Amino acid sequence: MHVNELATPALIIDADAFDRNLATMARVHPGRRLRPHVKAHKCTALAAAQQAAGHSSFTCATPLEVVGMGRAGVGDDLLLANETVDPARLRAMADLDVLVTVAVDSSETIRAAADNGIRSCLVDVNVGLPRCGVAPDRAGALADEARSAGLDVRGVMGYEGHLMMVPERTDRLAQVEASMALLRDAHDAVGGDIVSAGGTGTFDLHGDTGVNEVQAGSYALMDTHYGRQGLPFEQALFVVGTVISVSDGWAVTDVGLKALGMDHGNPSIRDGEVWFCSDEHTTFAPSRPLRVGDRAAVIPAHVDPTMAMHDAAWVVRGDEVLDRWPIDLRGW
Amino acid sequence: MHVNELATPALIIDADAFDRNLATMARVHPGRRLRPHVKAHKCTALAAAQQAAGHSSFTCATPLEVVGMGRAGVGDDLLLANETVDPARLRAMADLDVLVTVAVDSSETIRAAADNGIRSCLVDVNVGLPRCGVAPDRAGALADEARSAGLDVRGVMGYEGHLMMVPERTDRLAQVEASMALLRDAHDAVGGDIVSAGGTGTFDLHGDTGVNEVQAGSYALMDTHYGRQGLPFEQALFVVGTVISVSDGWAVTDVGLKALGMDHGNPSIRDGEVWFCSDEHTTFAPSRPLRVGDRAAVIPAHVDPTMAMHDAAWVVRGDEVLDRWPIDLRGW
Repeated sequence: MHVNELATPALIIDADAFDRNLATMARVHPGRRLRPHVKAHKCTALAAAQQAAGHSSFTCATPLEVVGMGRAGVGDDLLLANETVDPARLRAMADLDVLVTVAVDSSETIRAAADNGIRSCLVDVNVGLPRCGVAPDRAGALADEARSAGLDVRGVMGYEGHLMMVPERTDRLAQVEASMALLRDAHDAVGGDIVSAGGTGTFDLHGDTGVNEVQAGSYALMDTHYGRQGLPFEQALFVVGTVISVSDGWAVTDVGLKALGMDHGNPSIRDGEVWFCSDEHTTFAPSRPLRVGDRAAVIPAHVDPTMAMHDAAWVVRGDEVLDRWPIDLRGW
Repeated sequence: MHVNELATPALIIDADAFDRNLATMARVHPGRRLRPHVKAHKCTALAAAQQAAGHSSFTCATPLEVVGMGRAGVGDDLLLANETVDPARLRAMADLDVLVTVAVDSSETIRAAADNGIRSCLVDVNVGLPRCGVAPDRAGALADEARSAGLDVRGVMGYEGHLMMVPERTDRLAQVEASMALLRDAHDAVGGDIVSAGGTGTFDLHGDTGVNEVQAGSYALMDTHYGRQGLPFEQALFVVGTVISVSDGWAVTDVGLKALGMDHGNPSIRDGEVWFCSDEHTTFAPSRPLRVGDRAAVIPAHVDPTMAMHDAAWVVRGDEVLDRWPIDLRGW
């Protein structure tokens, strides 16, 4: 099938750029040094490609991602890097035929996990981002509590999400090291083999931080937000639209904000400058003459929520459609 | 079922507020004076409630919305208030057992509609928002072209979307009247019975504009964006989350940006102040003591894309869950 035969808006993965991104990351963090984050794509077929690149441990943000990965048989070590107290979802994860580990940061999350059949946990540590995670000086006591509840405490995790976009690499490195010193202190008190942290924005800053697995996800497909950081990963994700209206000075494509993650602002567009997005439209100033029926490739500002808005992604090489990958891990 | 038994994040419709919103609108615009916009909810069950309130003509933004409404048997007059040149989707709409009308603003959209079995159109007129729509002085010629192609030209539509948020009602009214003068001029040249325009933000400003049907959608459920406009509609939509982490000074709920339309910025939250949203979290400063496992209701900033992120909405009265409405018109 030719890419121009796809109904629009169509989520497109550039197969060559995607393959290069996976190879680049696997050179820096081979095997279990990377725990790819499934939330960035919500797609078991894409995760299977990451597994083929050598990574068999995965990070998830929702129970549904864990359950879907487990049922698809992708990965041998699934981490819910998030807190939940939902008994039914904890039991569904515990019932999988794969090692499942959940993050805990409170007595309530420990009790919910232990009461519903979960056997392994990481202590989630606040390393500076005001979100989940126990204060570092309370991590040891929480680990003791988890062990008393019967959980295997495999180590610690932290997420320095507030540092992904620090503009200067030198500044970023210094701040990551300070943040990870908190995680190391917590790890000293907690024990276990795993020190898990990081993301695409800090993937190459963990040489001396003590972190032994990096939870990057966006590197595989990228977006314009991460694209400004000078990372060695290429834009591999596009939303192809059809030009549905042309006026003097602007054109409109049928890729709107219901096809795009908008929390990082407007997308970009090849062949023009974006003015604004509506539910089902992007208005832009084209840089070349366009006619109704032409195609226009929109580049999302944020990959993760963009993937979550589509049923499937089309894997493309040049103009040829190679495969259709269902986005099968949407929802919770 | 009790609302606290729902797995979170859960999309909740307050049945009483919703009923009052429908009644308020039906008093101002009874029957065909309102052509409710399906894009605001993407839910045939909700559209059926609008039909029960007296409205049987509907506005849609995507072919899938038209096809889904037609197959569900809701509405007797479905308008695609948007342009498409997709032959398969045009044929799917043409094959429905219901009157389908599409917007056209170019030779290409006329030809595509006529070639694929569509029989009725409105001429879409640019009334000031740089998006779709033909220039007003070209509307008459386009109508002639559509009639020559065999289409029944039922009239005109315009969308004064750039005026929905003009803060002062007096200013808004003056600008809407100027914008609709363009639509009236176009209608004089086009002919037909329909002059369709408007939205929730201008629903009560069309007394003297010549518009004879208003395309409002958000009024049924509302959001914080429209909530600032002093409209007589109540917030009826919430995303209920579970508190999954509590720290000194903040708490985290499991309603994240993948459960919320983010193009109008952060949501609000009952019982606190939102700091920021992540994929699966909202961090907020609670205004009362919260514990892990408590529920927290998040109020979306933009209703339309929020609905599109969920499989279903739960209709609730007080703490009782009355019904589950599938969001069955997602996608394109």
